[in-house]
Amino acid sequence: MENVKIIEIKKSVFENNDRAADELRGELKTKGVFLLNLMSSPGSGKTTTLIQTINRLKDKIRIAVMEADIDSDVDAIKIKEATGVESIQLHTGGMCHLDAEMTEQGLTALLVEGQKSKVERQPDLVILENVGNLVCPAEFDTGAVKNAMILSVPEGHDKPLKYPLMFSICDVVVINKIDVLPYFDFDMEKCKEYIHMRNPKATVIPICAKTGEGVDVFAEWLLTEVKNWQND
Amino acid sequence: MENVKIIEIKKSVFENNDRAADELRGELKTKGVFLLNLMSSPGSGKTTTLIQTINRLKDKIRIAVMEADIDSDVDAIKIKEATGVESIQLHTGGMCHLDAEMTEQGLTALLVEGQKSKVERQPDLVILENVGNLVCPAEFDTGAVKNAMILSVPEGHDKPLKYPLMFSICDVVVINKIDVLPYFDFDMEKCKEYIHMRNPKATVIPICAKTGEGVDVFAEWLLTEVKNWQND
Repeated sequence: MENVKIIEIKKSVFENNDRAADELRGELKTKGVFLLNLMSSPGSGKTTTLIQTINRLKDKIRIAVMEADIDSDVDAIKIKEATGVESIQLHTGGMCHLDAEMTEQGLTALLVEGQKSKVERQPDLVILENVGNLVCPAEFDTGAVKNAMILSVPEGHDKPLKYPLMFSICDVVVINKIDVLPYFDFDMEKCKEYIHMRNPKATVIPICAKTGEGVDVFAEWLLTEVKNWQND
Repeated sequence: MENVKIIEIKKSVFENNDRAADELRGELKTKGVFLLNLMSSPGSGKTTTLIQTINRLKDKIRIAVMEADIDSDVDAIKIKEATGVESIQLHTGGMCHLDAEMTEQGLTALLVEGQKSKVERQPDLVILENVGNLVCPAEFDTGAVKNAMILSVPEGHDKPLKYPLMFSICDVVVINKIDVLPYFDFDMEKCKEYIHMRNPKATVIPICAKTGEGVDVFAEWLLTEVKNWQND
């Protein structure tokens, strides 16, 4: 293997929002609200996965969705139309991630909106669809109870090597688009091995959001986590 | 279409690096060096596209590569092994993008490295492979002469709607992985239409980096741009 020159360009960009995130989690615990932070690259299938998952869970628990996007609102509308659950769009105004303060702004708006719709009960589960980006969202604790990410087969099984922080902070990694496995050089076993190098405790769930294959397993994982959070 | 609540969360994160970028471009012009900034999502095939392109051009012009990555150096090694051209790795230390100052650090290191290898002539073309991210790299002018991006078929044809800034600043959009078009709901004509909504002047080049299909067209585009820059 050849040697290449490596230049270290370090720069601090991390705002300390850890305390705000911990406070938010404390509030959510008191209220019995479970917040899931869902992250991925652009185009990995977050919205389709959410629709499939919500439709399997919405008769069991009350769900709401916050869609973060740079400036479109197509996802929030899609979710609302396809599932009927409360859904709001968070415009980040160009920002590449959400932090705890922005997440709290969204939650507040969601609860006010819920009151307007005369919703008696607050949601058991709020899902935050973060900005499509494997780098920045991993650096900012949103205050979520659990972090989830979707890696899709066409992106390649080497991504845990290249985006180590994202994989190390995620409790569950959903591997989407398994229907196209025959057309890509994607090694599922290697992918699992790389994910577990970053985070030995990560749960890995292969799915195909388009056909629904495997989505039951993810929905079951999520329901169990919500119940544990509320009953702990 | 249903209405959804939209929350505007604006925050200024853009450092003003425009002057530094313009200065860098001025220097590059004096030296006759063309800098291409190549951006994309993770897993869209930047490195494979580069290898194919460099191998078509390296006997015609002198090429060097700067690979930006959060902390691995697999890409710089891969490029060097597969093409033989000078290649350095820029570690961003967690940063999600490169700005003009970081790019200049890389260029300086590259030229020093070139001198050590007793390279007489400086490169005609330096390619900067930016961090895999459709959001942040678009916000920071690196000082490049032209911006290029790769969108891969599995990511979907709607991406110009969701990442408007990235598409509006790119002079050329390479659409990669056209070999898997039959397995995805990707509408090439719609994709071109959306790209041109963002940037009517963008050149769109469909390719398959794996098989080499269409890469000649991209290589030709790049060679013409380099010659124009040097002879203008």
